This record gives sequence, structure tokens and C-alpha cells, in this order.
Amino acid sequence: MSSAELAVGVVLPASGTGDRFSCQTPKQFACLLDKPIFFHTVMAFYRFDWVQNIVIIVSTEYIDRVTAMVDCFKDKVKVVLGSNTRHRSIRVGVQALLHVQPVPDVVVIHDVVRPFFDEEVVKTIVKNAFVHGAAGVTRPLVSTVIQGDENDMLTASLDRNLYRASEMPQAFKYGVIKEAYEKADENDLDFGTECLFLALKHCQTPAKLIPGPDSLWKITYKKDLYAAEGIMKETGICVCIQSVTGSASEIVLQCLEHHISEKGLSCKRVSEVSSDFNTYVFVHTEKSDIMTMLETMSQEVCDCHRRHKYEIVKPCVIHVYAGNLCDTETEREFSETITKLSKDQCSVLWYGAVCQSTCGRLGKMVASLCWTREDSFSGQTFVLHS
Amino acid sequence: MSSAELAVGVVLPASGTGDRFSCQTPKQFACLLDKPIFFHTVMAFYRFDWVQNIVIIVSTEYIDRVTAMVDCFKDKVKVVLGSNTRHRSIRVGVQALLHVQPVPDVVVIHDVVRPFFDEEVVKTIVKNAFVHGAAGVTRPLVSTVIQGDENDMLTASLDRNLYRASEMPQAFKYGVIKEAYEKADENDLDFGTECLFLALKHCQTPAKLIPGPDSLWKITYKKDLYAAEGIMKETGICVCIQSVTGSASEIVLQCLEHHISEKGLSCKRVSEVSSDFNTYVFVHTEKSDIMTMLETMSQEVCDCHRRHKYEIVKPCVIHVYAGNLCDTETEREFSETITKLSKDQCSVLWYGAVCQSTCGRLGKMVASLCWTREDSFSGQTFVLHS
Repeated sequence: MSSAELAVGVVLPASGTGDRFSCQTPKQFACLLDKPIFFHTVMAFYRFDWVQNIVIIVSTEYIDRVTAMVDCFKDKVKVVLGSNTRHRSIRVGVQALLHVQPVPDVVVIHDVVRPFFDEEVVKTIVKNAFVHGAAGVTRPLVSTVIQGDENDMLTASLDRNLYRASEMPQAFKYGVIKEAYEKADENDLDFGTECLFLALKHCQTPAKLIPGPDSLWKITYKKDLYAAEGIMKETGICVCIQSVTGSASEIVLQCLEHHISEKGLSCKRVSEVSSDFNTYVFVHTEKSDIMTMLETMSQEVCDCHRRHKYEIVKPCVIHVYAGNLCDTETEREFSETITKLSKDQCSVLWYGAVCQSTCGRLGKMVASLCWTREDSFSGQTFVLHS
Repeated sequence: MSSAELAVGVVLPASGTGDRFSCQTPKQFACLLDKPIFFHTVMAFYRFDWVQNIVIIVSTEYIDRVTAMVDCFKDKVKVVLGSNTRHRSIRVGVQALLHVQPVPDVVVIHDVVRPFFDEEVVKTIVKNAFVHGAAGVTRPLVSTVIQGDENDMLTASLDRNLYRASEMPQAFKYGVIKEAYEKADENDLDFGTECLFLALKHCQTPAKLIPGPDSLWKITYKKDLYAAEGIMKETGICVCIQSVTGSASEIVLQCLEHHISEKGLSCKRVSEVSSDFNTYVFVHTEKSDIMTMLETMSQEVCDCHRRHKYEIVKPCVIHVYAGNLCDTETEREFSETITKLSKDQCSVLWYGAVCQSTCGRLGKMVASLCWTREDSFSGQTFVLHS
């Protein structure tokens, strides 16, 4: 989908209070891997070259903070002040798109607390919206839906096969969603939640319903933050392994690969540093030039990531010494260098591991470091003597 | 609720295949903090002294493994072979309760993939089942429920206020659930999912619906494992801090408490080791007798946990040296002792931290160790020199 085909605008309501989240901060501003959730969602849309405009709707309290955070992305991203209900806020966003260039053919509406979505799913929704006027993704119901009387006694159980859960993203031809909100009454705006239903009710436009993958969930409760962090790590962490002087034993490299993959992370062997990755495992075996190589490789990583405006996870470097018996002096110098790097370059995580013979544990340890990315462990060297 | 009041039996269907979990192992056998999910659920019921019998229904493939795992708990727990649908398996469980002592007045039915529940909620459901014949917990709907036609075009959106999601646990008077399953037809047994509905349909017993807390969710997708692990850590990890010779500075102790609490963990200062906790932070300040104290405290923890049949998390000990400048020799001896402990007592996690002056980072590091409980880091000493 090139911009020559369709002009696409995105509306992201982010002015809700998130009552179910049991936290003072509304969930969209809670941090996920050191960045607020809404920011990950905005970035995911920003990277689609077929999206020309993104409008975020926020409350008075957060508007300055959000505006500052997206400042480098203002070529596409616009922040506007929201209103007190979901539908009123979306209406503000839809109206804001009248004043952008190009005025969109299709508008995507998405929750900012859904940072996970697939480019293909969004494209499918956009194309279907252009054909049918409106389109939304659905998921099968997870629990049985039941009905009770005024005394909370069960009266009916719905047939799960006849119903589905309405999820996001949804998309609309711009004319349809604009008209739907123009015709919406006070009751719709105060109590309604379903945009697809507004299009049906006010424009007689039934949405095309498209079954979506299970990755389309929304962060609702505090527990969902743990799930979101896990999924974001699984999909966002890209590990590469490099044998620094090409002399690391095959068994060590395979063991590292095995444990990293077992954690659910992607892992590739490389012969040079590249910003396709964000996690670098360097395996050193030569004691003689280890300090030089350690600094050279570290510098290459820093150079690679200096220009990035947005990274899902903080880059991480793990220097492993897996050579002949290391003398105390070299070990000390090695660990001091790791500590120094962590102090000088705090935008990268630095870990060291010195290992002899305990290959399985080394693999598990390196894999855990790739996964946990604990800031307070940066600068530490882990020692595994048999 | 004492057993003199009501006899209670629990039926836990665990023979499903978990198709939505996208993993070869059915989700109930996936590991959560080193133990299969079903085991955490069984243990949660086992610990209620007012539950006399628990029946787990499993498939042929897993029956030996499950039977072996619950062997020490067979005073209450019985494993029976299930059938090919959820309702058929529950029926087997309900029938198995005819042969136990005491035959239950009330039967609780619960999913094994819901290891989180509150004793009070289960008691409320049991009492209501005894009064009304049947009772179940409900939650508000998270997503809008919609209906489409045969071409997947939207036709209706349900009013969210009229419906709720039916969750677990549910409970029934034994006579009601027994009769419901005796009268269930092939269609019910093959395609039905809602036990409350069977009681309504076949025994004209409408269930009392009780709104439950948001902790009553079920592990459905792989992402839910991350959420489950986070919640289990939040609720299961109990940290105590002890100033070993009573001389640790108030500022260090407060800093540790602050960072541990900020991770969402409970944390208490104590003057002696007790098995009320599973995470022990010992703060040492006296270099002269540090090795003796380190070994004494470690031994006390091992003694405390030797007899436990079930622990949610592996016990963990963090020895912190936060005294005057540590000489290289003491530091080496300290870290060697931690490594030795990790090799000799592998049922406990052992970490060391040697710190001068960098109090905030020490707090973060100790809190992260309490939280991550990474096995492969056991035996490591973290060094924080300014």
C-alpha cells in the first residue's frame, strides 16, 4: 500500500483514566521497557511508510509531556487535547484530520494500550474499510457470556459461536466516520464504546469483521504489563553472537545459541557488528589482545546505535572470555574495563562473563542476561570457575 | 467454614489440550516458577483446611506424571483418568466424589489454569452454592461483544451492561451437579462449556452470580505465563532484611527496603530467621567475623526450609557486605564462600553483594535479585565499587 494508493490517518485516543489498572498513573503512561506504553504504540504506526498522519488525543494533565516526547516525530505526529469520554475524544481526533495534508481516505482508530499489532493486519483492515466503508478485527470470546436477572440469578448463557469480541484496530472511510460522529447524539457520546456500531447506526454502514490473531490484546490490568514486557522482549530482542578472533570453539557457540533460542529470543551468528541487532555477545578466546578487542568491539556497538531515535530495548553487550585459564590479573583488568564501559556509556548495558569449562551454565547465564537486561547489573562480570 | 459445617470436594479438570496456547505441552503442564501450573492450583486448594477432597482429571498421557507429583499429598488428592471433552471429564470427577469420605455437601469446580484465587472468594461461592444450589463468579466484559451475519458483516453490538463473563470457581450442591450430569445429553457433553447452564437446564437451578475480583483470570495464551509469573512473584515473594550484628546503618537498611517495596514485594526487617519468609537479605558490616556469620546465617536458612513440601518460589539468600573498605583478600574469600554455598545447597539461591558508598545502586541490585531469582546467577558476588 503506497501513499499514491490511499492516504491513511491514524487516531489514537489516550485521554482515558484506566480505572481498572489500579494505579495512579493511567495505564497508557505506565512504563514498558523504560518507555510509556503510548509511545511504543505511536512508534509502531510511525514506522509504517504508508501512514501519513497520526493524531494522539490526550488530557490536559499529560499534553505537555506527550508533546515533548513526540517532538522528534512531529513530521507525522500531532497531539491534540481530548475530552471526557472515549467517543468525544475520538471525535476530536477525527476532526483534527481535516486540517492535515493529505486529508486521509481511510482513518485507522486504535487504542494506545495495544502496542502489539502486525503491519499486515492493519493493512487488511485499511483495505477492507476502503471497500466496505468500515472494518474491524474480532477475536473469539475467551469466557462464556451470561446474563442474570435483577437478583443476580442466572437466566441465560450465550452461544459462544454466534458472538465475538470486537477488538482494535478498526478503520473507516473518512467520510463515514466523520458523518457518524456528526450525527452521534449525547447518549452515544457519553455512554457508547463501539465505533463500528456508530457507523452502522448513523451511516447504515455495516463493518466488515475480520478475525484477527491472538496478538491483538489490550493492556487492561496491572498483570498485563508483565505479559506486555514478555512479548515485547520476545519480539524486540535480537541477539547476535560473534567469535571475536574467529577462534571460539564450536561447542561454546552452539551452547550459547541453544540457550538464547530456548528463551524465545532470535539469535544469529555474525562476523561483524550491525544495527540490525540490539544485543551483542562477543566471545573472546585470546588472552593476549583481549583488552584491545574488548574496547574495539564496544566502540563499534556504540557507533552503530548513536543515531537511533527510538529503540524498543536498550542495546546490550556481553563480553564472554571463554579461553584458556585466565590469570587473576587479566580477570581483574577485564572486569574493570566492563565497569568502566558501564560508567562511560550508560545508554548501553555492559556485562562480562569469564568462564572455564562450565559451558551449560555459561549459556544459561548469557541467555538470562540477554533477557533480563537489568540496569543495576550493568558493569558486572560474572565468573564461572569449575 | 469448618468441616463440621460443610463437606467440600474440589473437581479440577486438567485433561484439555490447550489449543490456544501454541505450545506442544498443554498449558496446565507448562512451568510457572519451576513447577507445572496445575500443581500450583492443586496446592492452593490443598492448603484450605475446610477442603477434604480434591480430584484432578487428567489424560492418559499425563496420568503417571501427575500421580507421582502429588504423591505426598494423597491424603486429600486423587488423580483420575479423564475423557475427551471438558464436560465428560468433569462428569468423571463428580462421579469419583461418590467414593470419597466424607461425600461432599458442596462441589467446587475450578480450572487448573487459574492458579490465582482468594480463599474468601471460594468460601463465598461454596456458601452460596449451599443456599442456592449453584453459584459462580462473574467479571465485567473486557471487550464489546458483537454479532455478524454469514458474510461477516456487523449486525449487532450487545449492551455491555446486560452481560457478564462467566469465570471460575463455580460450586454446586452435590445432588444438583450429580443430577445435571446424569441428565446431560450427548450434545451437552460434546459441545457445552458452561456447568452453571447445565444446572439451570436439567435441574431448574439458576446459579447465584457473584461479581469477583480481577485476580480471577485464566491462563489462556503464552503471554499469560509472563503475567502469571509476575503476579505469583508479587504475591509469593516475602523478603526479610536482617542487620547481622545489628550495626548496619539506617540509611542502607531504608534504601534496601525502599527498592524492594518499589518492585511490589513485601519486605520486613527482622532480628531472626523464620520460615515465614523465602528471601533473606543479610547485611554484614563487621569484616572481622564476616565468614563465620555468613555461614551461620546460611545454615539457619537451610534448617528453616528443609521440611517444606511445597514452596511457591525457591528460597533465596543475599549476603550484603556494606561495611568499611573491603580488602581484596576478604572480598575473594567472601565471593568464594557464596560460590561454595551455591554448589553445596542447590535448593537455595545464593548471591553476594559487596558495596561501598553506592547505596542507591545497591538497593536496585538487591531488589532485582529478589525479583529475578535467576538460577544461573546463583553463586555470584556483585561488586559495587564507587
